[in-house]
Amino acid sequence: MGRRALLLLLLAFLAPGAAITLRPTLRTLGSLHLPTSSTSRYAVARNYSVHYFQQKGFMWDVAKELKAMLVFAEHRYYGESLPFGHSSYKDSRHLNFLTSEQALADFAELIKHLKRTIPGAENQPVIALGGSYGGMLAAWFRMKYPHIVVGALAASAPILQFDNLIPCGVFMKIVTTDFRKSGPYCSESIRRSWDAINRLSNTGRGLRWLTEALHLCNPLDSQDIQHLKDWIAETWVNLAMVDYPYASNFLQPLPAWPIKVACQYLRNPNVSDSVLLENIFQALNVYYNYSGQAQCLNMSETTTRSLGSQGWSYQACTEMVMPFCTNGIDDMFEPRLWDLKEFSDDCFNHWGVRPRPSWISTLYGGKNISSHTNIVFSNGELDPWSGGGITEDITDTLVAITISEGAHHLDLRASNPLDPSSVLLARTLEVGHMKKWIKDFYGRAGKEELRDF
Amino acid sequence: MGRRALLLLLLAFLAPGAAITLRPTLRTLGSLHLPTSSTSRYAVARNYSVHYFQQKGFMWDVAKELKAMLVFAEHRYYGESLPFGHSSYKDSRHLNFLTSEQALADFAELIKHLKRTIPGAENQPVIALGGSYGGMLAAWFRMKYPHIVVGALAASAPILQFDNLIPCGVFMKIVTTDFRKSGPYCSESIRRSWDAINRLSNTGRGLRWLTEALHLCNPLDSQDIQHLKDWIAETWVNLAMVDYPYASNFLQPLPAWPIKVACQYLRNPNVSDSVLLENIFQALNVYYNYSGQAQCLNMSETTTRSLGSQGWSYQACTEMVMPFCTNGIDDMFEPRLWDLKEFSDDCFNHWGVRPRPSWISTLYGGKNISSHTNIVFSNGELDPWSGGGITEDITDTLVAITISEGAHHLDLRASNPLDPSSVLLARTLEVGHMKKWIKDFYGRAGKEELRDF
Repeated sequence: MGRRALLLLLLAFLAPGAAITLRPTLRTLGSLHLPTSSTSRYAVARNYSVHYFQQKGFMWDVAKELKAMLVFAEHRYYGESLPFGHSSYKDSRHLNFLTSEQALADFAELIKHLKRTIPGAENQPVIALGGSYGGMLAAWFRMKYPHIVVGALAASAPILQFDNLIPCGVFMKIVTTDFRKSGPYCSESIRRSWDAINRLSNTGRGLRWLTEALHLCNPLDSQDIQHLKDWIAETWVNLAMVDYPYASNFLQPLPAWPIKVACQYLRNPNVSDSVLLENIFQALNVYYNYSGQAQCLNMSETTTRSLGSQGWSYQACTEMVMPFCTNGIDDMFEPRLWDLKEFSDDCFNHWGVRPRPSWISTLYGGKNISSHTNIVFSNGELDPWSGGGITEDITDTLVAITISEGAHHLDLRASNPLDPSSVLLARTLEVGHMKKWIKDFYGRAGKEELRDF
Repeated sequence: MGRRALLLLLLAFLAPGAAITLRPTLRTLGSLHLPTSSTSRYAVARNYSVHYFQQKGFMWDVAKELKAMLVFAEHRYYGESLPFGHSSYKDSRHLNFLTSEQALADFAELIKHLKRTIPGAENQPVIALGGSYGGMLAAWFRMKYPHIVVGALAASAPILQFDNLIPCGVFMKIVTTDFRKSGPYCSESIRRSWDAINRLSNTGRGLRWLTEALHLCNPLDSQDIQHLKDWIAETWVNLAMVDYPYASNFLQPLPAWPIKVACQYLRNPNVSDSVLLENIFQALNVYYNYSGQAQCLNMSETTTRSLGSQGWSYQACTEMVMPFCTNGIDDMFEPRLWDLKEFSDDCFNHWGVRPRPSWISTLYGGKNISSHTNIVFSNGELDPWSGGGITEDITDTLVAITISEGAHHLDLRASNPLDPSSVLLARTLEVGHMKKWIKDFYGRAGKEELRDF
């Protein structure tokens, strides 16, 4: 084993956009996107180069333990990987090559290139790992290229958030549960806030009052009300995704258990509309102004960094069609149906394309994936995306790991003294599976050497 | 089982072109393409329609035995499946969608459509089967879409005829062996014929004599000699592919064991150039004029029907890059190296594209396919394509079947009183595997019903 285990290639997908789409605007909810600094370059092919990033996270601990090389591959059309430079997003003709299949093919070519060019890498096993959309790609990569990666860790990968594989209301129901459990009357306060906003925005005076009470950067007019409610709803969704047990800075700088902090302001739903909205502002302020730097709240921003929202908006309008809906009963939001036709029309107006809602499940199998092997699906129970994840074992080698106190891919984050035991256990199990895949790989390789195939 | 087994969808790929490329022209060696008559139509999507054909072959017997529905899916860009009508072959932009991946996606969509629209089909298992390129597609389809087909029969599928997975000389070596074993001095006569042609074509008189001796439709000039030798070589290749134990009409109307018949004229290599070439003509005549209808031999034709040579020529110039070579020692042909650069330049001149010789093994795994299941690879030992086939079991469910007296996908042909026992056994094994896949499918389906997943 000694020589063989020297170099394990461990491929991580830096995929910047798992998204929820709230009509009428297509918005992005962020995903794994850590602060980056370029450290070295390899020429992959004539027109491309690849960058390596130094960061901290679970992957670094794992790489150390498994004596692995860690490669972050940037997804085409994101970051600097623009196939047509500044024209890449010009029109649907230029965007034609932005598909998950093309991204997987890139990773296949990249790994072959790395194995050819890095001394000692040729016969080493590779493991794919990623979170959110990157987790979906990791799982799909193992399914489609099992000859290239020995296994995949798919963290918070909602591979069932398509077609009619799960009910469209599951996502927002989990968001609601997070708030309900984080403070008395918290979700109920939010549920009542929508009508309060509707009533207040009926008059010019009410609009001026709302602008001031919510400290908005730009004055509201009656046209903005849907946008205001979408922006607030997305804020609650984001808080659910990043409800981590310690202070963090993923979508925004936030305190530990930020929903609990926000819910401290939302303990009484039975107050006047204006008091309720003042409380809502305090809760929003936890998300938007934890650092105390914000002069006002800007409705056009929900995250501090660009997370590739353009790319994801196009992908959501082609293959990544994720149905979402609310009914106001099982969740704390205003009722809204999933309307594929309206979604499709929006896509056509924006990108000149129409979505293919069933393609992802046709291509990757939907729930019917039992013939594949060596994929670990991890999900946090607090994470709204867990509703579209694989949360029960499918076979001995298609395994689900549930992190009861985890939000969006908590397991991929750097270890922290405040980590709950559920994520510590998850990481241990994940490393155990990876070791098994590597061991099996060398077992097979040994046999194949013997029979000279 | 009763109700469940009523309708088994059995998908067959009618794929019209497994090809060998002999410089300087890109030529097609045919594949499964049986006489067709359209019997019914289904609208698959707005712009497409699908045709069903009545034919005879192994598939019909199997479908009957397994109570299966049989579907022949035409490959895009072949036959009537032209995505841009008459412009489909206009330029590389229009040809951009002619890839094996796109074809597999078509089959996935087709099966989903059939399951949706045919009463009772929804929960039935599907098996992919095909021969030659169609066999490659069947195997790859199972690899990439295991959630859609429970298994695949890949007959005479040279999935290793790529990259440097096998030596490039294997193919022509098998052709040579077929001739050597079919008559004394047969391959030796052919080996000597090339220099005889070279010598005879040195003079105008020799060229005129050759034109007459070979009964060519058009007079030879000195520029045509390489073409003449390529045409003759391709004839021997074709004979090796269709060296069936009974009279047949696949590439040409032919007698039983046509190589044996041709070799009757090639028993003496130690004769003058002109006698040798007269013998060569007699042997060629077995292939081109068994029916006795030909007035002259036409060097621009090697098969009686169009087998999609245009489409395959383009595919060979993009992803289906199959290296072939000869050395004149292990084979009976003039030595010729595999020259990727020249091949690429020819492709660029003809189609405006350059090949990607490693892509197929990157995409489908090359020899490293052991993580897949439920594929039977059958090969005939007489078939030159068997050199690029899977001829040894890889796992319990990736199985090789060798037909010692079989040429190109003999097992897929209709049963015949002259069938050798090796093909009878092969067919029995193949049906046995299919039954196992179906049984396992229903076993799984039962379990899944129980746990309501």
